[in-house]
Amino acid sequence: MALYVLVLGSAAGGGFPQWNCGCRNCAAVRAKVSGLLPRTQDSVAVSADRRRWFLLNASPDIGKQIRDNPQLWPRSLRDSPISGVVLTNGDLDHVLGLLHLRESQPLSVYATARVRSGLERNVFLRTLQRFDGQLRWQTLELERTCELQTAAGVPCGVHVTPVAVPGKPPLHLAADCEPALEDNVALRVRTTSSGVLTYASAVADAKAALPQLQGSAALLMDGTFWSEAELPDMGIAMGPARSMAHQPVGGPEGSLAALNKIDAARRIYTHLNNTNPMLDPDSAQYERVVSAGWEVARDGLKLTVE
Amino acid sequence: MALYVLVLGSAAGGGFPQWNCGCRNCAAVRAKVSGLLPRTQDSVAVSADRRRWFLLNASPDIGKQIRDNPQLWPRSLRDSPISGVVLTNGDLDHVLGLLHLRESQPLSVYATARVRSGLERNVFLRTLQRFDGQLRWQTLELERTCELQTAAGVPCGVHVTPVAVPGKPPLHLAADCEPALEDNVALRVRTTSSGVLTYASAVADAKAALPQLQGSAALLMDGTFWSEAELPDMGIAMGPARSMAHQPVGGPEGSLAALNKIDAARRIYTHLNNTNPMLDPDSAQYERVVSAGWEVARDGLKLTVE
Repeated sequence: MALYVLVLGSAAGGGFPQWNCGCRNCAAVRAKVSGLLPRTQDSVAVSADRRRWFLLNASPDIGKQIRDNPQLWPRSLRDSPISGVVLTNGDLDHVLGLLHLRESQPLSVYATARVRSGLERNVFLRTLQRFDGQLRWQTLELERTCELQTAAGVPCGVHVTPVAVPGKPPLHLAADCEPALEDNVALRVRTTSSGVLTYASAVADAKAALPQLQGSAALLMDGTFWSEAELPDMGIAMGPARSMAHQPVGGPEGSLAALNKIDAARRIYTHLNNTNPMLDPDSAQYERVVSAGWEVARDGLKLTVE
Repeated sequence: MALYVLVLGSAAGGGFPQWNCGCRNCAAVRAKVSGLLPRTQDSVAVSADRRRWFLLNASPDIGKQIRDNPQLWPRSLRDSPISGVVLTNGDLDHVLGLLHLRESQPLSVYATARVRSGLERNVFLRTLQRFDGQLRWQTLELERTCELQTAAGVPCGVHVTPVAVPGKPPLHLAADCEPALEDNVALRVRTTSSGVLTYASAVADAKAALPQLQGSAALLMDGTFWSEAELPDMGIAMGPARSMAHQPVGGPEGSLAALNKIDAARRIYTHLNNTNPMLDPDSAQYERVVSAGWEVARDGLKLTVE
């Protein structure tokens, strides 16, 4: 049984273009310059049967993502093929979409205890808890494989193993929250007979995470920034990539070098920030990545992991 | 000086189509049946100078709304023509978009003390408060006119008077929050020399609200449901319209009858629920509304209030 994968969104927080950004990339994509594709914020849908889907992260752009993917459309009066959501961290660009999945639809939500406790500090969440059984929390434990289930407890043939990778707590919790292993996980996803999809869209240190990423039929990897000083170099008053817990792709210290010999049949960068030059297929950086055997994710990309 | 108005979104909570709804309207709009237009969730942009815009409510669909309206695109590296947001209540479909307006952009947010206190029960809000001056709260007081200002305190020529209209606290606060006048306001909006736009997208009792709606050059009015039992009649396990604090449009007890003699040059129904038959221009209900001198809002509608 294969694992079916839809890349719903391939941009980092803010999307591409970003609402308040007039950088070269954003201006070009608004002007519909050829080759540059708009991208919504990072989220992936997985399924073993193509009837019941689980989202890996719930992006603020989930409305558009559902509209653009008929696999996720309802088949009856009140219905959704979306059975649940698996969260990899508590960043707003990964969790805000949960609050779109209201309208009394039962939902399984998988998260580490840490990520869940951050979410529960928001009274907005009650909109998903209007009746018993609407929101079924399920705890992700590091290194422990679980088979994803619907809110009604029906197993769906998708097996997930959360593994800790270097990251950080979400910005809005940084003030009163010491970093912990459970802040940020990658997911190893498979059916009983498929290869492994490794979804690792936030990784602060690829070399340290390497054992967690090995042996993948497909790897969706953090490609947020090309360079360490990408934002300050453009005149944007933000810190370096590492201050946001994203290792850049390029350079001798980048993830492309660190993952040079990784065992992964398909290697795909995703979670691309609007400023990343890799977004332009005419750029030298895009060429560098592709000639090293990597792909650059785009919204709508479909994978079948056999 | 005229008041410029952009209807960014004209649907009720959930949008049209709604992610988990397969009703006749939703199925038809997904199938691109002629005449039915997709609609994002209720939000309006207003400006006196067409350079600085204020949003009346911040919808979960704000990402698409900004992409679809070039007036709201940045003009430099980090910039937005969106100077602030005025909230009419704390419903998720009116406030969730605030959390899209991050990325360190200063913003004025106008709300009653009541609506603000509900928002502050969400730690997510801290993402808008990463530095002094990023979020400038301004308190809306009933019946008190204020001139909207940017986060830097620059007045923008748009004058707003919040007026209480019958409504309710948001669903996620209903459990521990007694209803109060400040839960739900309509906004009377003008420049020093224009007529008045009255924006009243949630009104539980149009007859009671009539004095607050009179004398408008343009009225954007709650058109959520056509009939009181619209959802239960379709087999959807939800209460009647009034349980959601929306007076239906049709019937002898509806808002169309109650506002029969209202003094308003343009009368426009908005905040349309996906189930409302008025969404179909071939319906008898649409015909009824239009022949009574009303319009049905659509996304992208522009008004100039002289």
